[in-house]
Amino acid sequence: MNAIDPPLAAQSHALAARYGTDARPSNLPWSEVISSLLGHRSVRGYKPDAVPPGTLETLVAAAQSAATSSNLQTWSVIEVTDPAKRAEMVKIAGNQKHIGECPLFLVWLADLSRNQRIAVAEGKPLESVPYLESFLVSAIDAALAAQNAVVAAESLGLSTVYIGAMRNDPQRVAELLELPPGAAVVFGLCVGYAKPESAAEVKPRLPQSVILHRDRYTYETEAQERAAYDARLEAFSRRHEMSAYTWTQRVVARMATIKALNGRERLKDALIALGFPLR
Amino acid sequence: MNAIDPPLAAQSHALAARYGTDARPSNLPWSEVISSLLGHRSVRGYKPDAVPPGTLETLVAAAQSAATSSNLQTWSVIEVTDPAKRAEMVKIAGNQKHIGECPLFLVWLADLSRNQRIAVAEGKPLESVPYLESFLVSAIDAALAAQNAVVAAESLGLSTVYIGAMRNDPQRVAELLELPPGAAVVFGLCVGYAKPESAAEVKPRLPQSVILHRDRYTYETEAQERAAYDARLEAFSRRHEMSAYTWTQRVVARMATIKALNGRERLKDALIALGFPLR
Repeated sequence: MNAIDPPLAAQSHALAARYGTDARPSNLPWSEVISSLLGHRSVRGYKPDAVPPGTLETLVAAAQSAATSSNLQTWSVIEVTDPAKRAEMVKIAGNQKHIGECPLFLVWLADLSRNQRIAVAEGKPLESVPYLESFLVSAIDAALAAQNAVVAAESLGLSTVYIGAMRNDPQRVAELLELPPGAAVVFGLCVGYAKPESAAEVKPRLPQSVILHRDRYTYETEAQERAAYDARLEAFSRRHEMSAYTWTQRVVARMATIKALNGRERLKDALIALGFPLR
Repeated sequence: MNAIDPPLAAQSHALAARYGTDARPSNLPWSEVISSLLGHRSVRGYKPDAVPPGTLETLVAAAQSAATSSNLQTWSVIEVTDPAKRAEMVKIAGNQKHIGECPLFLVWLADLSRNQRIAVAEGKPLESVPYLESFLVSAIDAALAAQNAVVAAESLGLSTVYIGAMRNDPQRVAELLELPPGAAVVFGLCVGYAKPESAAEVKPRLPQSVILHRDRYTYETEAQERAAYDARLEAFSRRHEMSAYTWTQRVVARMATIKALNGRERLKDALIALGFPLR
């Protein structure tokens, strides 16, 4: 697919939604695909309508088309249909009801167990498996795959939300899904049709100048750019959440206490117990 | 963007390239975006042609539109233009010359340093930062962002390849890019126009039945499905690489020895030294 002549009004609108009218870049190379990417928003309210037959296979084909380190394909995905397992996962995630309500719920796994089965079958121990690097490769592989599935889903008019809170209790998730050693949840993903009231406005992000650097990392102007973003996010939260938090306040609220990790402070021990020595 | 009537011939071709004619699913929901995703291949040979002005800003806008855990935005990206730094990175990556040759080279960072600057500015220590969970969130955030950039680049007719080998020496990468504590490379990414001889055939992946599970993890039929995939990948490598390795052989070659990690067996120590205690 090649670049198309920039539909400047649509581009301008998409960039304003993401960055605000004052901080947006302009007149960029553009495509239909990029329009779809820029329109992303996470959705936490789903209609009960089923997704069309074959949707899961489409999402998995997109996911498997993402790059995977050395073609090792160290990830797997489990569709959870059993209502009892869904209900348990709602609880693990701190009562996120959309896990129970969305028509398609996927659990994405870092999965070195397949490689371990090869080692056993071939009688060749795989020395690199116990290292942190191998866990990280598998988690990154899962993330690249899942993001392709998200992009594919949104191109079909579906919405999604990642559920990092599956990591509140990876061992319980492993029990529920009968995972072999060397497989662990990275995150969940809800897929379905958004309720109209849940299809929120695109969320503004930090200005590009804060995220993007050239040749060396710099942050001389970060504090003032953060202040401008704080004001933008405060206005967004006032419009949508009947509250008024700045980004700075949210970061502090989310990261200041171990309590806010909701059990994820034990992730290291949980992964070790699940067969990732993280050496 | 809504689903379009399936252009069945194109879909069938894309799925055959990814899975082989015997293992492909068929008659799936489909879109232009999904066609673009299915067509992905990693490219390691680039023309010297520059990318169009504004391309970097487009890729970053796409990247920032990906989901980010609790909107924490714990990633950054550095464009590397300095030829001396590029040359050093070619070496770090075991002489991958495309790092020096591609018109756009991006280093994606797990970045908790921005949050730490907020903690200092606000006088509020962030207790969760030292945990493995926070590093993992930042690495996943970087991966989701980068994958959106890849999808955007390919929609503009550009090609890409991830460079996991930046993790061969994260401390040297940090020195070169003057990273603050709490920031570390996750991977690099080459972007540019593929040389015609480098635009390889789409690489076949494992059948969906091996990757995708329902309600519980199973692998009863995995060994026989792996054998079929081994034959498919052997034929692919014979066509393209003047060699004939099965997937099983490649997995063993890549993972059997610590030596094949090329320094990444020290990743844990490197991350700790760079300000991620991984508690």
